[in-house]
Amino acid sequence: MPSGLVTSRRNRRTPYTDRVEALGVSGFSIVNHTLLPKSFARSVEADYWHLKEHVQLWDVGCQRQVELRGPDAARLAQKMTPRDLRAMTAGQCYYTPIIDNSAGLLNDPVLLKRAPDWFWFSIADSDVLLWAKALALGMNLDLQVSEPDVWPLAVQGPRAEDLVASVFGDEVRSVRYFSFMECGFHGRQLVVARSGYSKQGGFEIYLDDSALGSTLWDTLWEAGADLQVAPGCPNLIERIEAGLLSYGNEMTRENNPLEINLDRFCHLQGEIDYIGRPALEAIAAQGPSQRMRGLLIDGDPCPTCGKPWPIIAGDTQVGQVTSAIWSPAFRKNVGLSLIRKDHWNPGTPVTVALPGGLKSDGVVASLPFENPG
Amino acid sequence: MPSGLVTSRRNRRTPYTDRVEALGVSGFSIVNHTLLPKSFARSVEADYWHLKEHVQLWDVGCQRQVELRGPDAARLAQKMTPRDLRAMTAGQCYYTPIIDNSAGLLNDPVLLKRAPDWFWFSIADSDVLLWAKALALGMNLDLQVSEPDVWPLAVQGPRAEDLVASVFGDEVRSVRYFSFMECGFHGRQLVVARSGYSKQGGFEIYLDDSALGSTLWDTLWEAGADLQVAPGCPNLIERIEAGLLSYGNEMTRENNPLEINLDRFCHLQGEIDYIGRPALEAIAAQGPSQRMRGLLIDGDPCPTCGKPWPIIAGDTQVGQVTSAIWSPAFRKNVGLSLIRKDHWNPGTPVTVALPGGLKSDGVVASLPFENPG
Repeated sequence: MPSGLVTSRRNRRTPYTDRVEALGVSGFSIVNHTLLPKSFARSVEADYWHLKEHVQLWDVGCQRQVELRGPDAARLAQKMTPRDLRAMTAGQCYYTPIIDNSAGLLNDPVLLKRAPDWFWFSIADSDVLLWAKALALGMNLDLQVSEPDVWPLAVQGPRAEDLVASVFGDEVRSVRYFSFMECGFHGRQLVVARSGYSKQGGFEIYLDDSALGSTLWDTLWEAGADLQVAPGCPNLIERIEAGLLSYGNEMTRENNPLEINLDRFCHLQGEIDYIGRPALEAIAAQGPSQRMRGLLIDGDPCPTCGKPWPIIAGDTQVGQVTSAIWSPAFRKNVGLSLIRKDHWNPGTPVTVALPGGLKSDGVVASLPFENPG
Repeated sequence: MPSGLVTSRRNRRTPYTDRVEALGVSGFSIVNHTLLPKSFARSVEADYWHLKEHVQLWDVGCQRQVELRGPDAARLAQKMTPRDLRAMTAGQCYYTPIIDNSAGLLNDPVLLKRAPDWFWFSIADSDVLLWAKALALGMNLDLQVSEPDVWPLAVQGPRAEDLVASVFGDEVRSVRYFSFMECGFHGRQLVVARSGYSKQGGFEIYLDDSALGSTLWDTLWEAGADLQVAPGCPNLIERIEAGLLSYGNEMTRENNPLEINLDRFCHLQGEIDYIGRPALEAIAAQGPSQRMRGLLIDGDPCPTCGKPWPIIAGDTQVGQVTSAIWSPAFRKNVGLSLIRKDHWNPGTPVTVALPGGLKSDGVVASLPFENPG
């Protein structure tokens, strides 16, 4: 394994790991005890431009599924998220924050409704499986909670639709954003959803048979030869510019969904029953004391944001940077940050305390960042 | 960060990360969303010999604590493990497998009893916090479940007692294996337990104030100057020879505690009530179909065991290697493995299918490996 990351069975391989290794992956991260490619031969910036112009295959098998299936599946799904699921129909994807009884965020998965009694939470980095299993046990609910043999493969970029259509047929062109259809592939019916962790458009293919991993990768790879297809992975520049949040970075259990701007996914009226509702209502009544904002930071390309950087106004810390990187489009560093109420208006000048005692001027921005034009 | 591992806030630093970076850590692993050093400048083999002769400081802050505190704390702790906790007294540590309702292993923590209504599960790599919180919620129990600001630092090796005694006083010499005492340190009362993830003897110090991380590290470091103290980390050679299991490697949710030889921690008589008991009783009635065993493997030093290697007898797969490495003491590769009933007797010859089509002869061994003499 070509990185300093220790390799062992505990860091699970995906059905696509053999292929990304063959294509020169130069490092991995760990999400849900599973390998996530973090870089290939090219720089993050070169990858960014490629993603915005062409199409990439991303091994996002680490987005494991937590399956709820059985008579009480819909009841448990609603219990787990403040988003109102009553109007959700089979074939839809919903972004669904999961909170605990203090309204602290435990995860921010995409929920797929396969059938009225069958759901998949496609999760970020925490063991939602244990949360869901224990709730089912403790509440004595009638359903199965499991981690099925399902491994998403993302096809992202402006040519993603052409590539996916060339493999699965033109019907996929009619799939709406955050919806899915089922497509035949070597005897399986795969969920093909219009979704993904970039704003460049694309699909996520939920392979449900790990033995077909190389076949699926190779089929897409060969079909993409004319489209300059490349291996890729979530791109830090693109995701920050787009304001895409990352669980564990922009939000932890210490954060409630309102302060990271998830208000529209928090149902506070009517009779739906979910964990954390009283705590969330109390926070909403007062209003959050900090909010997620963009930040444009002056100076040379910044180092990696491995721990939160303080944001200062005068002599007071008024927030923290949670992720940051040099943006070639803005010719500045762009960051995501949590900023207190008195300073969160776009245009507010602040100072960022970088590692090593350096300080840089910055200015608060709305999210997603507006195109520098 | 000196590794191919992506660095971000999601991969949490510990109070000791600054110090291990200053001492030349050359790579990290991720456990519980937290950095665990995996290597320093020396080879794993050089580290192994040092660990067996001297004393090392290990940043095992990734062993996060799941705290149960309140009137129902003891009830929930017992619900979570098949080990009988009725005789456990404050000041003891118990190794406590955690299983789900199918008797599948979710974690194998060390449980510390601080007081009759106050427990810490010192966990391996899975979010036991979510499991415990959801059980408390679903069962409507009266307690607080949290992850406190507690970060174990391990002192391991034959000179560990001398080092710890020089800092905390000679009283620690009387602490028995898997017991702890509280020791004053800069105004805190720290749990100092005789325990750790090696068989070379030592202590784990449960720092409960992250702001004192560098102070604790430096105090031990300076006191160890005469003892050839070095930074270290769990050593793969030593742990395999000692038969120490690793959650995620030797066992997953697919395994029950009987097949990895945890029979003595599984209480199957009397009236204690824990999750998974009916499933465990059914498995015990039949007897497990496979068992954890040692394996001595012929040939040159083997590659890293990144995915299970098949164990073959005749034309049939009879097991899998879960961890393996070259042992300088045995002058052979040593492995941990799950092997089916007909082949698990020590001395049974088998064949191991290594990566790249290579095959090596091997022989089943009891655990821990007997000293080669």
